[in-house]
Amino acid sequence: MGKLYLIPSPLGDNDPAEVLPASLLALLPTLKLFIVEETRTARRFLSRAGLKGHIDELEFHELNEHTTADGVAALLPLLENSDAGLISEAGLPAVADPGAALVALCHKKGIEVVPLVGPSSLMLALMASGLDGQSFAFRGYLPAKTEERRSALKAVEKQSAQLHQSEIFIETPYRNDSLFADMKAGLSPSTRICVAADITLPAQFIRTKTVAEWRREKDFTIGKRPCVFIILA
Amino acid sequence: MGKLYLIPSPLGDNDPAEVLPASLLALLPTLKLFIVEETRTARRFLSRAGLKGHIDELEFHELNEHTTADGVAALLPLLENSDAGLISEAGLPAVADPGAALVALCHKKGIEVVPLVGPSSLMLALMASGLDGQSFAFRGYLPAKTEERRSALKAVEKQSAQLHQSEIFIETPYRNDSLFADMKAGLSPSTRICVAADITLPAQFIRTKTVAEWRREKDFTIGKRPCVFIILA
Repeated sequence: MGKLYLIPSPLGDNDPAEVLPASLLALLPTLKLFIVEETRTARRFLSRAGLKGHIDELEFHELNEHTTADGVAALLPLLENSDAGLISEAGLPAVADPGAALVALCHKKGIEVVPLVGPSSLMLALMASGLDGQSFAFRGYLPAKTEERRSALKAVEKQSAQLHQSEIFIETPYRNDSLFADMKAGLSPSTRICVAADITLPAQFIRTKTVAEWRREKDFTIGKRPCVFIILA
Repeated sequence: MGKLYLIPSPLGDNDPAEVLPASLLALLPTLKLFIVEETRTARRFLSRAGLKGHIDELEFHELNEHTTADGVAALLPLLENSDAGLISEAGLPAVADPGAALVALCHKKGIEVVPLVGPSSLMLALMASGLDGQSFAFRGYLPAKTEERRSALKAVEKQSAQLHQSEIFIETPYRNDSLFADMKAGLSPSTRICVAADITLPAQFIRTKTVAEWRREKDFTIGKRPCVFIILA
């Protein structure tokens, strides 16, 4: 029986060697079978990670939000005679993405799952935020509609205060600035907000300020780039 | 003004090159100033990371649970003319450890904070657990006393069911098995538990099973090793 290697990938177009251990880069050429969120992205990543010229010898299967439960189960026999690598669009596979269904199935069937070290935008943002809650929670996306989003923000802030918990969430890049405007408008002046954009990339921007301080930065915009938000009330 | 580099370290006695990117290993020899949770551990890590023979040329300052707020503030002038590296006992610095106070101060003073990629036992466990909650929360340690711990476990399980949230917690190694016994006794048979021990180390053990399944594994013990627990109800 093969093993399922969980292979993180860079958070942007940077060199894989900047963010992945040499041991992971050395493992990649030994794998022939990849289960990926999107083949095109995975091929480009593997090519940059040292497999250029060998991509056509590899076998790719997609596992994404369109894959049914039967589709996930159909991937399992591939592991009978071969190790496989699981790769998501960016960052860690099987965290808040469809890859977790395959990992769950591996546990059921006794297939060994090997998680490998790589960039986690959530943890890099949390480390660099200075927001030392006694605990933290990741909530994915908040609601997109203004009214629902504003109440969600108030609820998240209340929970942060009660549990002294850092609250982490993300947004589709084109909505970063409207979310951030709602945060500045609706959260308490003393609540701290960390804005962490383009993590690990040349344009990396990570700042933590109180709501009151952010309100004074009238010209600041985040723009359409990958961004993690963290608040601590 | 210098920068504060947040430098992850291995989760055990393994080779730093196994779990840290080459770019981080290349950065280390350029730093002369380190702010560390424990000097002895940090010296050993840096020595194994390629600085052997140069450790005595480095400056170490400790920042740990005994450091007062004034003590943290006193570290800041060190960064006026020099970059510094922040290193915790194991894994990511400034996540649930006293380093976060220094990072917070850097944000106040406009000092740039640069988080670097390395092993996060929490995220490696979550990836490999297959427990795809829509969200996840890290709760640190549960109460140590049996009665309080049992009610905390029930509360955590209830929240996991309500929010479809993976709940991550840790325990002092010598209490792993008593916590695990309480989990098996008190949680619902269908709740899934991931036990992730010795992550990234040769003895790595990561298994996710339902409470009902774990109850049947009568001979299984975790032992006194670093372990992350995750449940999803």
